[in-house]
Amino acid sequence: MTKKKSRFLQTPVEPFAVDSGLTADQLLARMEKISFQGRNLATAHRIWQKMLEDDVTIFLGMAGALSAGGLRLIVAHLIANRYVDCLVSTGANLYHDLHETRGQRHFIGSPQADDAALAEERIDRVYDTFASEEEFIGNDNWIAAFAATLEKRAYTSREFLYLLGGHLWKTTGRDGILTAAHRANVPIFCPAIADSSIGMGLSQARQKTPGAGYIDIIGDIVESANMIIRRPRTASVVLGGGTPKNFINQASVQAEFYSDEVSGHRYALQIVTDVPHFGGASGSSLEEAQSWGKLATDSARVSVQADATIALPILVSALATTAAPLVARRKAPAFTLASPVMTIDGETVPHDRFEEVNESAV
Amino acid sequence: MTKKKSRFLQTPVEPFAVDSGLTADQLLARMEKISFQGRNLATAHRIWQKMLEDDVTIFLGMAGALSAGGLRLIVAHLIANRYVDCLVSTGANLYHDLHETRGQRHFIGSPQADDAALAEERIDRVYDTFASEEEFIGNDNWIAAFAATLEKRAYTSREFLYLLGGHLWKTTGRDGILTAAHRANVPIFCPAIADSSIGMGLSQARQKTPGAGYIDIIGDIVESANMIIRRPRTASVVLGGGTPKNFINQASVQAEFYSDEVSGHRYALQIVTDVPHFGGASGSSLEEAQSWGKLATDSARVSVQADATIALPILVSALATTAAPLVARRKAPAFTLASPVMTIDGETVPHDRFEEVNESAV
Amino acid sequence: MTKKKSRFLQTPVEPFAVDSGLTADQLLARMEKISFQGRNLATAHRIWQKMLEDDVTIFLGMAGALSAGGLRLIVAHLIANRYVDCLVSTGANLYHDLHETRGQRHFIGSPQADDAALAEERIDRVYDTFASEEEFIGNDNWIAAFAATLEKRAYTSREFLYLLGGHLWKTTGRDGILTAAHRANVPIFCPAIADSSIGMGLSQARQKTPGAGYIDIIGDIVESANMIIRRPRTASVVLGGGTPKNFINQASVQAEFYSDEVSGHRYALQIVTDVPHFGGASGSSLEEAQSWGKLATDSARVSVQADATIALPILVSALATTAAPLVARRKAPAFTLASPVMTIDGETVPHDRFEEVNESAV
Amino acid sequence: MTKKKSRFLQTPVEPFAVDSGLTADQLLARMEKISFQGRNLATAHRIWQKMLEDDVTIFLGMAGALSAGGLRLIVAHLIANRYVDCLVSTGANLYHDLHETRGQRHFIGSPQADDAALAEERIDRVYDTFASEEEFIGNDNWIAAFAATLEKRAYTSREFLYLLGGHLWKTTGRDGILTAAHRANVPIFCPAIADSSIGMGLSQARQKTPGAGYIDIIGDIVESANMIIRRPRTASVVLGGGTPKNFINQASVQAEFYSDEVSGHRYALQIVTDVPHFGGASGSSLEEAQSWGKLATDSARVSVQADATIALPILVSALATTAAPLVARRKAPAFTLASPVMTIDGETVPHDRFEEVNESAV
Repeated sequence: MTKKKSRFLQTPVEPFAVDSGLTADQLLARMEKISFQGRNLATAHRIWQKMLEDDVTIFLGMAGALSAGGLRLIVAHLIANRYVDCLVSTGANLYHDLHETRGQRHFIGSPQADDAALAEERIDRVYDTFASEEEFIGNDNWIAAFAATLEKRAYTSREFLYLLGGHLWKTTGRDGILTAAHRANVPIFCPAIADSSIGMGLSQARQKTPGAGYIDIIGDIVESANMIIRRPRTASVVLGGGTPKNFINQASVQAEFYSDEVSGHRYALQIVTDVPHFGGASGSSLEEAQSWGKLATDSARVSVQADATIALPILVSALATTAAPLVARRKAPAFTLASPVMTIDGETVPHDRFEEVNESAV
Repeated sequence: MTKKKSRFLQTPVEPFAVDSGLTADQLLARMEKISFQGRNLATAHRIWQKMLEDDVTIFLGMAGALSAGGLRLIVAHLIANRYVDCLVSTGANLYHDLHETRGQRHFIGSPQADDAALAEERIDRVYDTFASEEEFIGNDNWIAAFAATLEKRAYTSREFLYLLGGHLWKTTGRDGILTAAHRANVPIFCPAIADSSIGMGLSQARQKTPGAGYIDIIGDIVESANMIIRRPRTASVVLGGGTPKNFINQASVQAEFYSDEVSGHRYALQIVTDVPHFGGASGSSLEEAQSWGKLATDSARVSVQADATIALPILVSALATTAAPLVARRKAPAFTLASPVMTIDGETVPHDRFEEVNESAV
Repeated sequence: MTKKKSRFLQTPVEPFAVDSGLTADQLLARMEKISFQGRNLATAHRIWQKMLEDDVTIFLGMAGALSAGGLRLIVAHLIANRYVDCLVSTGANLYHDLHETRGQRHFIGSPQADDAALAEERIDRVYDTFASEEEFIGNDNWIAAFAATLEKRAYTSREFLYLLGGHLWKTTGRDGILTAAHRANVPIFCPAIADSSIGMGLSQARQKTPGAGYIDIIGDIVESANMIIRRPRTASVVLGGGTPKNFINQASVQAEFYSDEVSGHRYALQIVTDVPHFGGASGSSLEEAQSWGKLATDSARVSVQADATIALPILVSALATTAAPLVARRKAPAFTLASPVMTIDGETVPHDRFEEVNESAV
Repeated sequence: MTKKKSRFLQTPVEPFAVDSGLTADQLLARMEKISFQGRNLATAHRIWQKMLEDDVTIFLGMAGALSAGGLRLIVAHLIANRYVDCLVSTGANLYHDLHETRGQRHFIGSPQADDAALAEERIDRVYDTFASEEEFIGNDNWIAAFAATLEKRAYTSREFLYLLGGHLWKTTGRDGILTAAHRANVPIFCPAIADSSIGMGLSQARQKTPGAGYIDIIGDIVESANMIIRRPRTASVVLGGGTPKNFINQASVQAEFYSDEVSGHRYALQIVTDVPHFGGASGSSLEEAQSWGKLATDSARVSVQADATIALPILVSALATTAAPLVARRKAPAFTLASPVMTIDGETVPHDRFEEVNESAV
């Protein structure tokens, strides 16, 4: 009806057309033309493909009860197939992964459960999911026993988790996040390891063996920044915000102090349920991240406001179709993780001092 | 590890396993075993199937910018194929449907757009979606012109919308919510029609023709309750809350005054983004609805906290596979809607007085 | 430390300093210098003061369970003291107001209550608040009985609610929203009256007396737009979104068709818990409202993301101190509401046709 | 109207009555009788008073941008006056506190700011708040320089932050969280210190001085649990969730392994904006916390869904009136913090092994 279309009215919304038998990638292809979070989820799918085509190190951050909630094998799949190159996780997600890899389960429960009755039976509740406290205590002991066997020195969380994954693989032979990362030589950082049952297990190692259970969490900062100094082109995929989201961004900001090559992530996608307007980092927008230099101002980016238990199964199922050829062609960075000093593509990456590419900005 | 499993630890969470080529229904089948909103979305799929197998009248409520946001053909599909039997909608969703059925479009936009520039160019923004104000004014005129041709009397929103859908079908021959409902003889109620551009069009009809543009909104209350008195077994599917959610519940509560056969919806599923803890009706829980008698206390029910632009495409794509045989077998109520008095299965349903099956409770 | 301050770094955040005995207005004065929603709430206080100093018609929209939740006397206070000039409300808020004005109560409850037990005892729950279903049925009857006494014709919701408020005042002599509005001659619109127990009462009036219970909801659109055509400078205060938010904006957009003097609200403040990114109108931003012409592009505006049960008591308690002199000086529009045709400042305002100040744009 | 009141209908909601000059505590006294989050905020006020009357160790957790957002002097007030006995914080809150204590400011900004322009001028944005990146780099250097002066060994975050607070007090003499805690001998734990600019400063200390910047984060787990083993009656006040919320709960769970006296916090209040239904710990309910033994099943508890920038100023302003006599009478635990081993009430608290009151449960 309007004579000449406004510059604002270029690409029409295409109403989603229902068909039977649509696959995950077909669903997302149709959702790319609709609005709101449906469009954003489809955009996330496209941006992840672009990351895989480009030569970038892909960081994955995960917070929220994703492992307990049934997403751990998706994350293991992303690691094993190198859709991502480095995981930054809360301790809880690694712990609940270990719980299942050790052959134990989480259970379908209800948010209306009687918590006093659960406490009585020593069942722990995570919203609508239950688990046995006794089994959790068993895990703590298992972690403590393993940590007590290690040489008495401080470990970065990255080194410790690599060793833990190896021990888990050796004793169980089962797939999971920790075991997949061990086998694929994908580093895992856990900056808030002290705030988790893995941390509790480590603290109990001291009870068994004086001098055990020391983690060099500041070394993780150095090592993660050095990873970016070494390979300055990066991408960030964030599930749920929390410490992993900030740690991935901080690594880039820290790296920028020591290298002019670094200028923020080239790609960023986040799937979060928090909102920006209360000021917290978990919900902070990707636009805001540009002001800090966490993201390049010309980065491709999208924020999806959705529960990861809906968004991630669809997104990764779609990638399993669309990204398989990209992953096959991809030249991912090669890590070795078996010692205090990791290597990338054959070169060591120190955790006790930053690599200064420039004159120090500090 | 635990000797005897607690009654709380019966059904394990099954971590979602990634595969390429998964279809929407396969995705949901796997999501049924995980946690949080992913599980809830899968449960919604199962409950909708149960509704279709049972002999219930299925009400669909829709609020939020679903039509502008690209979901109108999903709703049209649900109506045309009788996944639902009655639609209760905000006026805006019907208006944005009419906008597209008339051959106009909504456009892909950005939430970071400069709203002063948009105002300058007379582009209206709905979050990340744009449309032409000039075309909207054209719609208002079109509605006003149609309303001015009608016999000068009050119409329930249900009757008016049936006639509007017919006029739209005749002039465009295009699929959409209003046209699908007209063709499938599915009633549409719009209790807040005064709060929409359809209401604005009706108000402008008075300007053209004194005596035009009268809506008997209280008649809609009577008629919708009588639908439930006539067929007391019902189900409620709610997208986004708002007036449609409450209107569907109110119809059941109102019907219960006049018939002991009515005892709340037997099935309820809602896809909402509002939360219960601020007290508003949009976010209110389905548990709370039991206290009012809106739901039977043994109803099958699930609340999904998700944006409908993510949840609905998946859910209805899955139903297109899983529910096709159920829909084929289904004995849906048959309506005629062409006059002030609708019929169900051949019997008239008054809008000027409730049918009293019992001694009046009033 | 920086040599010359950036244009972005002009006004420092002043950390909130704790003192005993701070009054509501002192609290807000200190919150104006902090961040996030605290600052926004303080800004709302300042903007409301500006509205009262300017010559604008102030519309108040209310949605959500504010009356049941204990805020009805705040709204009555705003009306009685003419902090606002026109109320647009959901039916539920007027109904729960009537419930208490009739001498009945809502009760302190719990969100963890057993809803099946409540249903058994016929107690209705609104999150953490309970009420007697039997008393609600009594209200419905009372409304029906009153509506049945009225002359048999259609009433705008505005006229009907004025009459209802009068009847309520006469029979109870108690303060409340409806009685305060009646006594202060402040118009109340209820565009979604069909979606409420007031609507249910009206529908039951037809059962008692054929021809009773007709509401001319489209007349409300005309009348509300004419109010703005008559006095084009307006302000919008919105609590909770819903139909009232849109109806207030729609009145301005509709008025603009007929008068070039109208160009959107000059002031806008909203206290909402919904968010913009799902596309719904309740959570839509005030920036977006500019694109539609709902707000003047140079309007003073603020959106507060907070539950009204926290924000409103503080805000209005502060205004009771800071705005008392402004209200005393204020020249509010004078309405008469006792007949089908209202007057503003002595001039009639039709509800059956728009006043065309310009050449008709339609 | 009902003959005999139901057991559910005992305490009526009292509508909030507006008065001028109401103080914060008077506001909350009236809000205690209304509904939803207003009532919850008032309940938080009452529960905090009960904590202060009882003989409990009060933990305060803070996450979210509270210091940048203008709440740091409220937290300093709580510490200095011993409304709380131990702070668990994100690193960012301590860092932004240090930023201002060093005489620098955060600035009033806008969420609609142009982030590319901000990046250009090296201004960092936190939603609606700005700060100078250059000043932040100065802080990092200052922290690094201080850390480099310390004896070369690992420090718990608790010990390091005590020393940092002391250095800050000595060099600035200004009030703030770190300086107040130093002066009042209130321990601060920062379990995710690696995920913050304080961590970045520590990592840069290594660049200056090999062997500097080592934090023993696992020691914090042991020490915090030992605090609870020593004084098993505890309370938890949580602002914003995150790692502090879980760390406070974990300390109680960990302590319970070693002492039967410990059985979860006796009081819990949280002010959060996250919601339970996505499964994340930040939004998890206090009911759920019982299942884990984090809370005693008979604990007094309340969750307030609100932005802390609104809730905390009111709550603490009210406490400044109502709790002053309670604080005066209160027998708070006495700490010394100046060495690797802290003391409580004169007795040492190890950080390298748990105190086993019982036979070890492990």
